[in-house]
Amino acid sequence: MNRIVRVGLVQHAMGPDLEENRQASLDGLAQAASDGADLILLPELHASEYFCKYQDPALFELAETLDGPTRHALTDAARHHGVVVVGSIFEKRAPGLAHNTALVIDSDGSLAGTYRKMHIPDDPGYNEKFYFTPGDLGFVPIQTAIGRLGVLVCWDQWYPEAARLMAMAGAEILLYPTAIGKDPDDNEDEQLRQLDAWRTIQRGHAVANGLPVLACNRVGFEPDRSGGGHDAEFWGHSFIAGPQGEIIDEAGTESEVLVADIDLARGEQVRRIWPFLRDRRIDAYADLLKRWRD
Amino acid sequence: MNRIVRVGLVQHAMGPDLEENRQASLDGLAQAASDGADLILLPELHASEYFCKYQDPALFELAETLDGPTRHALTDAARHHGVVVVGSIFEKRAPGLAHNTALVIDSDGSLAGTYRKMHIPDDPGYNEKFYFTPGDLGFVPIQTAIGRLGVLVCWDQWYPEAARLMAMAGAEILLYPTAIGKDPDDNEDEQLRQLDAWRTIQRGHAVANGLPVLACNRVGFEPDRSGGGHDAEFWGHSFIAGPQGEIIDEAGTESEVLVADIDLARGEQVRRIWPFLRDRRIDAYADLLKRWRD
Repeated sequence: MNRIVRVGLVQHAMGPDLEENRQASLDGLAQAASDGADLILLPELHASEYFCKYQDPALFELAETLDGPTRHALTDAARHHGVVVVGSIFEKRAPGLAHNTALVIDSDGSLAGTYRKMHIPDDPGYNEKFYFTPGDLGFVPIQTAIGRLGVLVCWDQWYPEAARLMAMAGAEILLYPTAIGKDPDDNEDEQLRQLDAWRTIQRGHAVANGLPVLACNRVGFEPDRSGGGHDAEFWGHSFIAGPQGEIIDEAGTESEVLVADIDLARGEQVRRIWPFLRDRRIDAYADLLKRWRD
Repeated sequence: MNRIVRVGLVQHAMGPDLEENRQASLDGLAQAASDGADLILLPELHASEYFCKYQDPALFELAETLDGPTRHALTDAARHHGVVVVGSIFEKRAPGLAHNTALVIDSDGSLAGTYRKMHIPDDPGYNEKFYFTPGDLGFVPIQTAIGRLGVLVCWDQWYPEAARLMAMAGAEILLYPTAIGKDPDDNEDEQLRQLDAWRTIQRGHAVANGLPVLACNRVGFEPDRSGGGHDAEFWGHSFIAGPQGEIIDEAGTESEVLVADIDLARGEQVRRIWPFLRDRRIDAYADLLKRWRD
């Protein structure tokens, strides 16, 4: 028994005009839907440029509520095309309290659920701890018409703990809206190692949990508008992997809509031959809740 | 500041003659040492054929104590060559109580420590739960003259939890003696997916933890001597990966001694640019200690 779902990833570039960005997302959604996608994933924070290159209190103006313009644009598109949409917003929760939040819109246009990014990075050019309060919703999959989605966001993708917790709560796919690029100061070898590390660890989550993985990244050059020199060049390479970590399809470094079929029933077959969940040594994992074992 | 360690992996085949197997291990150790290796890793259960293809109480005769012939052969070799050796035995702990145990022999011939395989597989042709009591020593790195070793064994390699716990206890390298092969009944696509999944998840542990990874597998065809039809064909492909998961060197499917330099100081540099350990959400990981989140 197969359970085929056609998934679409809308990899695109963002500029300073929010309306143009939203239109690029909607155009990509329409294309993926016309290619038959049932589930469509957008990049992280797709309504704007990646504003965390530097710290500026004025940039909190970019935040929108869960009931804001991006939610409404995605709701209309999901309902119109009859598809499940996973989007990403800079969420204004209260004055002085914002999150990096994924929205899951069901195929009837209802809000199936939200996920607030749990792991928040902070490094030169990626000042996320200034903008985003760490998520407080935990690692909870979101039920939709096509299945139970384990939505995580960007930096979460480096944490096997996050993928495992989603799998253990019944997620049937892992999805990562993301914004990651290369540091132009690194040499090409280092840039390639980073790209492959990013792909490898997420494919590893597929293997560890017997689940397909979707990662949708942005592309394009975005200047550091503060003049701080932290220009960003997002590397694209959005991909669709099966439950053994096998790459089913992968984008390049330009705007692209990637569409492929995945079989949600395949994961159970993989788990039967590789029953990792059976043998976890939960009696010996207590120190995973520590910061360090010293 | 670099901290270069030359590592050697002795990938070899095993037959029914224990002395010949031990000699193959010792020959490989000598070759790796003459190539300058400081740390040498052998495959899982290198003194015998992989006996878990079927269940036979008589095969417990293969078990040896921590003070048995394999320990002594490795001790002599480690002292003679002045190298750290990681071997693997079927450990007889008491009548009716056996483990799958890694031995770490320091470069002066002393027993630096042991690790008892924590995750025990059990599937057709790999009846390990019949032979091996799950390890009771936990995930504890072993200090040696060349560094702190996070030794895990085979099935452990599919568990991000095990790698993480070793890293959190200060392991500087992850090492996996292993015995894994293809199922001849699978088609070639499936065989290749499995091989790549095996490589990918271990490279993922390198990435998640900023640590180099060594995996040493056996090779060769071993018949199911019970006539049960579970012949094994071990796939080799032992590899050495750096702390971004990058493959430094990799063996083929024949007996081979793989020697390469790794830099133990590189991991700290990687962790500075990718400070995953800083951001773990230990406040939200409690359910990792559950069997399932239902």
